[in-house]
Amino acid sequence: MFKQLNLDKESSQPLYMQLVDQIIRLIEESKIQKGFKLPPVRKLAEFLDVNTATVASAYRFLESNGYVYTRVGSGTYVADQSKKSREIIDKLKLLDQGQLVVTPGMINFASATPAPDLFPVEDFKNIINEVLDRDGGLAFSYQESKGFRPLRESISDFLKLYGIKTSPDDIQVISGGQQGIDILSKAMLRYGDCVFVESPTYNGAIAAFKSRGANIIGIPLRRDGIDLDVLQDRLRSKRPAFIYVMPGFQNPTGYCYSEENKIKLLELAKKYDTYILEDDYLNDLDYSDQGIRPIKSYDDGGYVIYLKSFSKIFMPGLRLAFLSLPQKLSGEVIAAKHITDISTAGLTQRAFDLFLRKGLWKKNLEYIKKIYRSQMMYVCEKLKLIKEIQFEKPRGGLYLWLQLPEGYSSVVFYSICLRNNLLIAPGSLFYPDYNDDTHFRLSFASLSREEINRGIDMLGESIKELTGESENKIMPLI
Amino acid sequence: MFKQLNLDKESSQPLYMQLVDQIIRLIEESKIQKGFKLPPVRKLAEFLDVNTATVASAYRFLESNGYVYTRVGSGTYVADQSKKSREIIDKLKLLDQGQLVVTPGMINFASATPAPDLFPVEDFKNIINEVLDRDGGLAFSYQESKGFRPLRESISDFLKLYGIKTSPDDIQVISGGQQGIDILSKAMLRYGDCVFVESPTYNGAIAAFKSRGANIIGIPLRRDGIDLDVLQDRLRSKRPAFIYVMPGFQNPTGYCYSEENKIKLLELAKKYDTYILEDDYLNDLDYSDQGIRPIKSYDDGGYVIYLKSFSKIFMPGLRLAFLSLPQKLSGEVIAAKHITDISTAGLTQRAFDLFLRKGLWKKNLEYIKKIYRSQMMYVCEKLKLIKEIQFEKPRGGLYLWLQLPEGYSSVVFYSICLRNNLLIAPGSLFYPDYNDDTHFRLSFASLSREEINRGIDMLGESIKELTGESENKIMPLI
Repeated sequence: MFKQLNLDKESSQPLYMQLVDQIIRLIEESKIQKGFKLPPVRKLAEFLDVNTATVASAYRFLESNGYVYTRVGSGTYVADQSKKSREIIDKLKLLDQGQLVVTPGMINFASATPAPDLFPVEDFKNIINEVLDRDGGLAFSYQESKGFRPLRESISDFLKLYGIKTSPDDIQVISGGQQGIDILSKAMLRYGDCVFVESPTYNGAIAAFKSRGANIIGIPLRRDGIDLDVLQDRLRSKRPAFIYVMPGFQNPTGYCYSEENKIKLLELAKKYDTYILEDDYLNDLDYSDQGIRPIKSYDDGGYVIYLKSFSKIFMPGLRLAFLSLPQKLSGEVIAAKHITDISTAGLTQRAFDLFLRKGLWKKNLEYIKKIYRSQMMYVCEKLKLIKEIQFEKPRGGLYLWLQLPEGYSSVVFYSICLRNNLLIAPGSLFYPDYNDDTHFRLSFASLSREEINRGIDMLGESIKELTGESENKIMPLI
Repeated sequence: MFKQLNLDKESSQPLYMQLVDQIIRLIEESKIQKGFKLPPVRKLAEFLDVNTATVASAYRFLESNGYVYTRVGSGTYVADQSKKSREIIDKLKLLDQGQLVVTPGMINFASATPAPDLFPVEDFKNIINEVLDRDGGLAFSYQESKGFRPLRESISDFLKLYGIKTSPDDIQVISGGQQGIDILSKAMLRYGDCVFVESPTYNGAIAAFKSRGANIIGIPLRRDGIDLDVLQDRLRSKRPAFIYVMPGFQNPTGYCYSEENKIKLLELAKKYDTYILEDDYLNDLDYSDQGIRPIKSYDDGGYVIYLKSFSKIFMPGLRLAFLSLPQKLSGEVIAAKHITDISTAGLTQRAFDLFLRKGLWKKNLEYIKKIYRSQMMYVCEKLKLIKEIQFEKPRGGLYLWLQLPEGYSSVVFYSICLRNNLLIAPGSLFYPDYNDDTHFRLSFASLSREEINRGIDMLGESIKELTGESENKIMPLI
């Protein structure tokens, strides 16, 4: 059986999912049959050159979906095929790729896409018409790859609010935050280069870095920021192309970096002469109104690449974001933008320029903050009633990072929730190499109050189902 | 001097430009000085492991810009520094990256961007308002990564006109043609993989393939299509991830594949089990009204990836294009789209859907075809008066591929034109590895009749300047 398994470390698909997939194929093609004993976790991990956690998680996932069963003290065996449920692994793959289409009636705690009724459609419609009357065909011509100059100027003004001083020449307009990650990967990563990320981190970034053939190293994330001791230790032996961080309401944890942590992180970047890629996708949603100061605002030496997206705080389908770059990176980044998609759509850039200039931005942000603040309060109150779950209430953002009772797996919990028509994001999706399975991420951005009510009730029942069945408890796999 | 030169074959910058750049740096930093004899072409080519043509072209470019001079029978020497003109190489780099901003008064024969007054702005404005009234905030929400379903349906209908049968499930909406090339590269190319391209070909494709660490092999292009003998010969020893071709009004040559060539190319793809990436960026601009039949319309075995862009025939700043995919590639491509930019802007997709459904597309195409047909006739008549230039009048498209008198270099001609405030695209930009310098590309898409008149007059004068000065003649470099 060993020889037929072959994990691809460059694939955007997590390793444990690949392993699940391949074992299912062996079962489906009857290459291994009912009663067949799978290799011990440690032995298979060694053969495949992966963490034991990767193999353990694959076995657990297979078990929770009826493909295999475990006999304590004996091992893991292929189960009776009639019990299998291929659907759940297929859906997990789609979820990881952002492709899962939610079926009617399903409550989606996995998505952080804002609800469309929060978008300033009327304001935007007026602005688009103003642009078309003003610019005519020019709005549909190619734009400079760097971005429409007046928009870069208004972004540069806008950034003063965050304490960031930047020239319009060092702004690169991009088509959404994910494109920022992709373009920087093209500009800065060669095959085999190394990137440091928070562990856990945004899975779309992991996939983009892997696609460049990068070697991704996770640095543990603490409640007040990245683990600086571990980071320094790693920096001593490896020089990453950059360190990818989300200091404000991090995805998936919702954690915020302390000022001290941000300053020390910047000092380390200087000391070891590397870049910080600071992803600000959500800083503005601070319900405490303390404000989040970007690392970029401390940066006077050109060590921070600042990426700001408007997808979560404004309108995702606009596909608009920008980079504020250290000057010396500007040339490489513009070349990467050009081979990626030439330039971002002109109409959008021109419309967003007016949106910033007219201050409509602020009005909209205040409005959505008010709504999300009250949603967050409500969700946290309700979640507190589920005793089995532990979490810390974040002071902003759209994510909660919830811990299961000791000994239970989020991948197994994900399977139970899915059967109950509830979608959560299991923690396993967010690790560069799978090494934690005790948390899951919950977001409420796209849900109504009624759906939140129903969803959290169902979550409580699913937890009972998880902890009630002793077979769901993580057992030492041998 | 040798040791300080180091060409990067993975860089998106052509090798001869890198070499020019590095030699200029050596001169500017006084590491080599006036009178220094450069190594013989063959010796340097051997050391750098590149074609002799690459080195020869670099030397010629340096010579035409006053950095070096050649003594027949003796060699190439560093010239008096006061003659140097750094500007021209910098501009050529920008031109290659699509970043050259044309100064006022300059006539731009290098760009094929349609003039903004040809865009159907009023029609599009009405449609955008219709979409916003109909869909509200949904138009600004994330779309499916594959694309807005109704748009995929109308594209599938639209493709029937070209004889292509495809399901909406096999359509992938993308943000312009360049993104199609980028996404397919992500989905299909691993580091070190091989890609076949026409030689010459579109430089933006070369850059995208190089950025994935691909090994690019040029197959000569003939007037009736790709050289099938050379192709078959190469296929015998190497299996490319795909063969990238533009069978209609190819960029940069304007050539069209014969039906026979298309059918045989497809047969070779089948025989050697590889894909064809067919880039249709311009098929619709057929002034002979014979119509161009895509290779995809012959494909019943899933060997052709069909990429259609609307940038050149509609509005470039819309950033909209699509792929019609063999079914088995669909999963990989959607994952690549997701890590690239999640999805294409919803408003654009919804508006373009209505544009197709209402048939406004056809009206606009007829209009621009009429204008470009008459421009093409006019340009060809005027060019015929310049005896030194040879070309074949294409039956459609926006490009002319012009041949200089024997023994003259397009890079040198480019330098002369630039001094005369005229921008052309030297042939050297379009070769995966530099191996021809006798042609240049001319487009008239963005120019008025008056600019065309002035531009072609100036072109004639520049040719006289080129051929009048014997030092511009290509001499055997030793």
